Amino acid sequence: MVKIAIDAMGGDFGPEPIVKGCILALKKKQFIPILVGKKSEILPLLPKRYRDKISIVEADDVISMSDAATEAIKRKESSIYIAIELVKNGEADGVVSAGHSGATMTLATLRLGRLQGVLRPALATLMPTKLSRRSILLDAGANVDSKAEHIAQFAVMGGCYAEDLLKIQTPRIGILANGEEPSKGNDVTKEAFKLLIGYKGFKGNVEGGDIYNGSCDVITCDGFVGNLVLKASEGVASTITGLIKDYIRKSPIAITGALLMRKVFRLLRAQMDYAEIGGAPLIGIKGCAIVSHGKSNPKAIQNAIFQAINYVDTGVNEHIIERLEVLKNKEK
Amino acid sequence: MVKIAIDAMGGDFGPEPIVKGCILALKKKQFIPILVGKKSEILPLLPKRYRDKISIVEADDVISMSDAATEAIKRKESSIYIAIELVKNGEADGVVSAGHSGATMTLATLRLGRLQGVLRPALATLMPTKLSRRSILLDAGANVDSKAEHIAQFAVMGGCYAEDLLKIQTPRIGILANGEEPSKGNDVTKEAFKLLIGYKGFKGNVEGGDIYNGSCDVITCDGFVGNLVLKASEGVASTITGLIKDYIRKSPIAITGALLMRKVFRLLRAQMDYAEIGGAPLIGIKGCAIVSHGKSNPKAIQNAIFQAINYVDTGVNEHIIERLEVLKNKEK
Repeated sequence: MVKIAIDAMGGDFGPEPIVKGCILALKKKQFIPILVGKKSEILPLLPKRYRDKISIVEADDVISMSDAATEAIKRKESSIYIAIELVKNGEADGVVSAGHSGATMTLATLRLGRLQGVLRPALATLMPTKLSRRSILLDAGANVDSKAEHIAQFAVMGGCYAEDLLKIQTPRIGILANGEEPSKGNDVTKEAFKLLIGYKGFKGNVEGGDIYNGSCDVITCDGFVGNLVLKASEGVASTITGLIKDYIRKSPIAITGALLMRKVFRLLRAQMDYAEIGGAPLIGIKGCAIVSHGKSNPKAIQNAIFQAINYVDTGVNEHIIERLEVLKNKEK
Repeated sequence: MVKIAIDAMGGDFGPEPIVKGCILALKKKQFIPILVGKKSEILPLLPKRYRDKISIVEADDVISMSDAATEAIKRKESSIYIAIELVKNGEADGVVSAGHSGATMTLATLRLGRLQGVLRPALATLMPTKLSRRSILLDAGANVDSKAEHIAQFAVMGGCYAEDLLKIQTPRIGILANGEEPSKGNDVTKEAFKLLIGYKGFKGNVEGGDIYNGSCDVITCDGFVGNLVLKASEGVASTITGLIKDYIRKSPIAITGALLMRKVFRLLRAQMDYAEIGGAPLIGIKGCAIVSHGKSNPKAIQNAIFQAINYVDTGVNEHIIERLEVLKNKEK
């Protein structure tokens, strides 16, 4: 059975939503959960009937959001450090953390190491699209100043994820650029374009608007660019919902309208909801690490755990090693 | 009186919305409009009482959206070429075009030339924010692979625009980056950060989500990044409205709700509407060029014309030359 180490301490709301999320997951799927953190805080949150199903590994220290990611490597008693060590030592197959994402990525990369052939692990985000399927955008922020070879590798790694976890037979792969024509892009993406020509599923450049229209399954980009695109997108969504709420509040007629539209807004929320996805996998490391949002609720943690289980179950890492070999041989 | 040359041909819907927009503008503001394009197509769209108020300059050729921007410099009979020559020869003070934006930017830069001290002209987009004021993002796509000096200059040029045209006394200036801390950013933005330290109004880094929360008045970035952020934002907005429409269509109750919320949706549309802004100025050239959306309706053209008039009236170009000198001396 898959063993998942869960950083119980790092989230913005302390261990409660994380412990609850772990219990939720356990009700629906069989796996071995290991909560890592302060026993004195976790135990009171754990109903008696779960105490023999969920083990707790003590960790005194917590990396807080205000700490520098570079600190993480020295803080060997922190919950995220110990959770990742469990994977390193084979006591767990994957790790889920809603804590400091920079710390999680740094530790996972340095302590677990990169898969054979991987130059840079990438953070992959599942994006909602107009269609019911999701697309993957990577790198979503693990690397700034990515080189062309990195961006080409992100594409390949994302493709393996799409095949194995999203069950898309031949994922359509695109490079995020300022226009569809091969002549578009910056120096780095133009070079990445050349490296990907002929790779299975590669469709060329895609534009910013294509992220959400479902025209591509895998979208590869530099982490600086990926971070900005994601944050701007969240900003637009929250501005729109904020404006709707403001306008509604000012009009009793609109309030009635909004009540009648409740179901519409609920569907919309479900489509956009971070909790439905759970977290972003750091792809390219030996093992499995799912980076969850600091504000994760129990449902988000549950889904992040499911993601980790699937990641381990599908053996996507072996697939990545093979495909990077294909990319490398293509280049020759 | 300010003379504005208007490319009547380049838009996606032919000369009709452009001629109509010109008439709309003329009803509200005093200026001298010069429509550039095929007389045989423009004249029938012009009511008799406007024929002595609007002059037409014949242009046989039109750069279409599928042409390469580099073609533009050879197509000397095209409407956009001739419109820009009018500015170059002093027969017009500014140009408005809803045609091929690459062609407009290339021609405006090459034929009109850069203002003294300007390394690269930048396309500036006015962004809606949660607050009633707008922010400026530049470069929105004129330059890929911008250097640090370019990004610093964009900030200064955007600041002048915010002061003179948006009437913001000391515009808050931010660099778009993957985190607020000075340590965040890619190699280029970190270097730009150093160049801007101490410049009036400079606030440091801002994140993607800050574009829409009104925390900054001027947001500077590389044109590749700016293009992606804008296109992704438009994608999110259109996906949300598309999903709302889809869900509403499936439920009679929701349709009633939507009717009661009509005013809310109208306000939202006005806030997001491209036509309210009109176009994006190319800042840093000798003269004035407003790049409008290919799909511009008459209102968008009217507002683009108003933007051009204001740009010329405020003398922002002189201001830019002075301020770039301040930035340069600061660096010494």
